[in-house]
Amino acid sequence: MPTLYDYCDSGNGYKARLILALTSQPYDYVEKDITKGETRTPEFLAINPNGRVPTLVLDDGTVLAESNAILVYLAEGSAYWPEDKLSRAQVLQWMFFEQYSHEPYVATPRFILRHLPPDHPRQDELKDRWKQGYAALSVMESQLAKTPYLAGQIMTVADIALFAYTHRADEAGLNLETYPAIRAWIQRIQETPGFVSML
Amino acid sequence: MPTLYDYCDSGNGYKARLILALTSQPYDYVEKDITKGETRTPEFLAINPNGRVPTLVLDDGTVLAESNAILVYLAEGSAYWPEDKLSRAQVLQWMFFEQYSHEPYVATPRFILRHLPPDHPRQDELKDRWKQGYAALSVMESQLAKTPYLAGQIMTVADIALFAYTHRADEAGLNLETYPAIRAWIQRIQETPGFVSML
Repeated sequence: MPTLYDYCDSGNGYKARLILALTSQPYDYVEKDITKGETRTPEFLAINPNGRVPTLVLDDGTVLAESNAILVYLAEGSAYWPEDKLSRAQVLQWMFFEQYSHEPYVATPRFILRHLPPDHPRQDELKDRWKQGYAALSVMESQLAKTPYLAGQIMTVADIALFAYTHRADEAGLNLETYPAIRAWIQRIQETPGFVSML
Repeated sequence: MPTLYDYCDSGNGYKARLILALTSQPYDYVEKDITKGETRTPEFLAINPNGRVPTLVLDDGTVLAESNAILVYLAEGSAYWPEDKLSRAQVLQWMFFEQYSHEPYVATPRFILRHLPPDHPRQDELKDRWKQGYAALSVMESQLAKTPYLAGQIMTVADIALFAYTHRADEAGLNLETYPAIRAWIQRIQETPGFVSML
């Protein structure tokens, strides 16, 4: 069975934990506390030279990094990764949007607020990141006002990728009050059979 | 046949043009000069509300955005998008790496240097972006010292995604002199049958 190296407070790691739960796949879990430098030890760097979680190690020793690549790998063969090429492209479109236009502006402010001291110079980044964070949330709101899930009628790995940090937006200093379609989508995902919460 | 809305100097757009050429797929090309605001007109925003190129419009009117999602869509059924799930995950791992850890530090400095005036405040970002750009290049160098292509023995969309801005690194102010494996990989890609250059 695969081993997931992860940090419990990581939304990126939660993406892997959620798809594993939803598809009932067993796995070993190894906690690496990034705030204590546990992903920068020689032992962990021998596993993943980039020193990042989540890292998935397969039975044959193959190491997979990048949360969204891990998500697709674990979802293959399930309904969370569609069969036809156009649907898959639309799912990937949202997952690349997540990495480029959402994660730096929703996940990073959460990290700054939760893990850095209040007088840390990176606090100055918050204002600009929030602006872009709300822009990303508006793109999601606009889609979710039209369809129940990001890539259409069924829940896919695109929803899991974007749910991870969006449902914790308050911890990033972002307010979802004016995003009713996102709030309904969060509830819809939380009611999915097999759902597990983040912490 | 699909229509590609693109800007000739865009590396993201070039990813689509290169896979279309390598797989001999015909398409209509519509140039949108981002420096003249041509992706922000009401006409273009009606096609892609995010106002970004590349945008691919399929025969049935379906609109695909995000260069790497377009790449995977256009490569399905070719050797550039492998069949087995582990290889695909490894390809996607590099493509998500490109969007999160490479594009902001290799493509963005190129944009700042090529398209913004020398006294623009964003010039101050260069030093930090170069540092991260060299870190991303080192990750690629380390892999390409071991395998001829990023995901192993054959060229895939992962190589196309990372080739686009890496082979123009000099225009971003980044020097590839100490990255011999990257330079050999660039030459290898340029010698691929069907290769077309960026401009």
